[in-house]
Amino acid sequence: MRSRVAPWAPPRAQLRLTELESEVSGLGLDAVTRLVDAVLAEHRGRLDEDGVVLYAGTNTMSERARAAHEISMGCRPSMGWPGDKYQTGLDELDVLEVLVPLQVAALMGGAFAEVRLQSATLANLACYSAFTAPGDTIAVPPEGAGGHGARNARAVAGIRGLQVADLPYDAARLDVDHDALPAFLREHRPALVVLGTGLMLFPYDVARVRAACDEVGALVVYDASHVAGLIAGGRFQCPLGEGAHLLTMSTYTSFGGPPGAAVVTRDEELARRVSGAAYPGLTANYDASRLAPLAVVAAEHAAGGSGYADRCLANARALASALDAEGFTVFAADRGWTASHHVAVDATAFGGGDEAARLLAEGGVYLSGIGLPGQAPGEPMRGLRIGTQEVTRRGFPPEAMGAVAALMRRLLIDGHDPARVLRDAVALRHATP
Amino acid sequence: MRSRVAPWAPPRAQLRLTELESEVSGLGLDAVTRLVDAVLAEHRGRLDEDGVVLYAGTNTMSERARAAHEISMGCRPSMGWPGDKYQTGLDELDVLEVLVPLQVAALMGGAFAEVRLQSATLANLACYSAFTAPGDTIAVPPEGAGGHGARNARAVAGIRGLQVADLPYDAARLDVDHDALPAFLREHRPALVVLGTGLMLFPYDVARVRAACDEVGALVVYDASHVAGLIAGGRFQCPLGEGAHLLTMSTYTSFGGPPGAAVVTRDEELARRVSGAAYPGLTANYDASRLAPLAVVAAEHAAGGSGYADRCLANARALASALDAEGFTVFAADRGWTASHHVAVDATAFGGGDEAARLLAEGGVYLSGIGLPGQAPGEPMRGLRIGTQEVTRRGFPPEAMGAVAALMRRLLIDGHDPARVLRDAVALRHATP
Repeated sequence: MRSRVAPWAPPRAQLRLTELESEVSGLGLDAVTRLVDAVLAEHRGRLDEDGVVLYAGTNTMSERARAAHEISMGCRPSMGWPGDKYQTGLDELDVLEVLVPLQVAALMGGAFAEVRLQSATLANLACYSAFTAPGDTIAVPPEGAGGHGARNARAVAGIRGLQVADLPYDAARLDVDHDALPAFLREHRPALVVLGTGLMLFPYDVARVRAACDEVGALVVYDASHVAGLIAGGRFQCPLGEGAHLLTMSTYTSFGGPPGAAVVTRDEELARRVSGAAYPGLTANYDASRLAPLAVVAAEHAAGGSGYADRCLANARALASALDAEGFTVFAADRGWTASHHVAVDATAFGGGDEAARLLAEGGVYLSGIGLPGQAPGEPMRGLRIGTQEVTRRGFPPEAMGAVAALMRRLLIDGHDPARVLRDAVALRHATP
Repeated sequence: MRSRVAPWAPPRAQLRLTELESEVSGLGLDAVTRLVDAVLAEHRGRLDEDGVVLYAGTNTMSERARAAHEISMGCRPSMGWPGDKYQTGLDELDVLEVLVPLQVAALMGGAFAEVRLQSATLANLACYSAFTAPGDTIAVPPEGAGGHGARNARAVAGIRGLQVADLPYDAARLDVDHDALPAFLREHRPALVVLGTGLMLFPYDVARVRAACDEVGALVVYDASHVAGLIAGGRFQCPLGEGAHLLTMSTYTSFGGPPGAAVVTRDEELARRVSGAAYPGLTANYDASRLAPLAVVAAEHAAGGSGYADRCLANARALASALDAEGFTVFAADRGWTASHHVAVDATAFGGGDEAARLLAEGGVYLSGIGLPGQAPGEPMRGLRIGTQEVTRRGFPPEAMGAVAALMRRLLIDGHDPARVLRDAVALRHATP
């Protein structure tokens, strides 16, 4: 059986694809509308209302921010700066196009923010386009250094036609191998060095990377996709203050805004060049509907972001400790498990991270696998990755982390029936204010 | 005075930027929320409720489609195919990830549709990435051939590091110079030939372009950003049926869905390669919240798209005729003005397209300037571009086009006070069912 949507998809996807294809074929307008309504209701129910969502790459917006989203604004293209636009009738949007860059730049410790890019992947590509030529080399963390962050940085580098070199890495510490870095830079002469992965347990020594990069004229790009919300709250680290030339970020995940991205810098010339890669280049229209909720979320961070960041960190430490107490092998125990909202668990005993994540989802706990240091290339992901940003926003206090860890133990260690655990997970979610 | 947001912006933007910067600086959470609410209310009022919107690059969604937009779905990353995803908890989203590509492919006369890309600019970049290497040449319509479509195709080609050659063009007819094409292709050997601009009055002879491209092994990409809604309704032309290898499109403008894009083809191997450029490559997360309204809009097209397309065309012909009767110089009078929902007007007598568009906006009529054939490079845009897709969706019948043309005459020819015309434009808008 071959899918009509993606006959080239891996064999394990073909069954689900062909099953769905027969389900959705031949539906008329009313049937499609009913199906879409049902999909949305079930999606909201599963994740937004009932889920214990520990997936690191997501979040929920405040009601105030949700209310500020008006999709019709996304269908009104806006090209050029306020006062010099191609389109007319956008006088009100001008306000947001000035407000949001100022807010985001201030929160991230920068002076300039480019907020028109639709995703962190494209924010990285804007930096690649602005500061490299095809055929140049950039250096990124190796794939073993923590999941999809590095993988994405690598895949999108291919769009620009770049060579990608693996940064020398101290895999056990999830950190750059600073001793090996200077010789590596002299050998590979990368135009850019990208820091940041999908698993960010501890800050980088950005100043030391910057000093080494200055020797060869490389720019330091800090991909803060996962930790932008902590940085906005003045926690974890301030990459631009410590020497990064450019900071890229997604505006959801820990930042907790709408889907989208930003590139932030302190340097006017770098900002000008990123802006030129964003428009005209990677964007013509850019979906301005994101700006209104982003303005609200940025104002929320300015007003109370340190408290939110502290609660994310406290929940992560409490969950790591509770998981340890339940018998899980929590990564980096010798360093106190985490200094961020992320926690990593060794899932080798449960058939690996993907297998464990599937079982946890049946029990109402949603997260993902992650590669852990030391695993071989191609080996199934050994780890489970946890992010506490969404449960924190949902009002879970550190005292609730014991109950979350217990759900995970019952599913992965005790082998309880997932359907029973699911009921308890939903109850836990609804018991939280 | 230099803007803090974009000190590099053109001088004519600096005044507006610095004015807004002082207005929005230092606002707290409640003040930002109030400001954002006011911006949204004024934006809705100006364009969605009161505007006579003739801008070619926008549209309004049906209430049914708007109701299907749930922004929280956009904050739930989905990487990989249903049945083989990195994330858990996305079982419901799987349905849309199968339904929407099938719908879009069928509507556009294709077999495969890649719907994860966030904009038509990125849809073109996905094709460039899949089928060219940096340093290759692609051929696109010259800048004089109709506005931003060609300009965007050119700018995003720079992201891939491509050389761009101007297609031989019969500027007066807004069409490829078919006689010159074979020699041009033999000389430049482009990997891709891109058809489609921001002003699409008449269909291309796609079959003839394809035949010439086959001689040199070039792929034909038809950028249907502006005319996708007509094609979905079975009007204008069917590029994939006539020989285009790939069709790129935006999902709003004439298609009338949410912001976003698609790449459609009949060829499995081409589809596989576009899919690989989309993920992993140009997207990691892709904002899946677009899929639900897109499914509804696609179902609307399948149910009644030919009627909508016919009404767009009838309104365009009626408006062109009314403008002609009011004394405007409508482009391509000798060919019946238009075979699409676009109309172009020579605005030289009114100080050019941009100047005329600004005056029209003061009177409640929103559209844009456009380059017209024969104008010199760097000269201000001579034309005004009109698209009837939004007023058609708002219920304007062909009989109302005389009143629209009269508003334009009063503003541009009679020199009436824009404030008085604005009142009449709003009244006209509200008089329409």
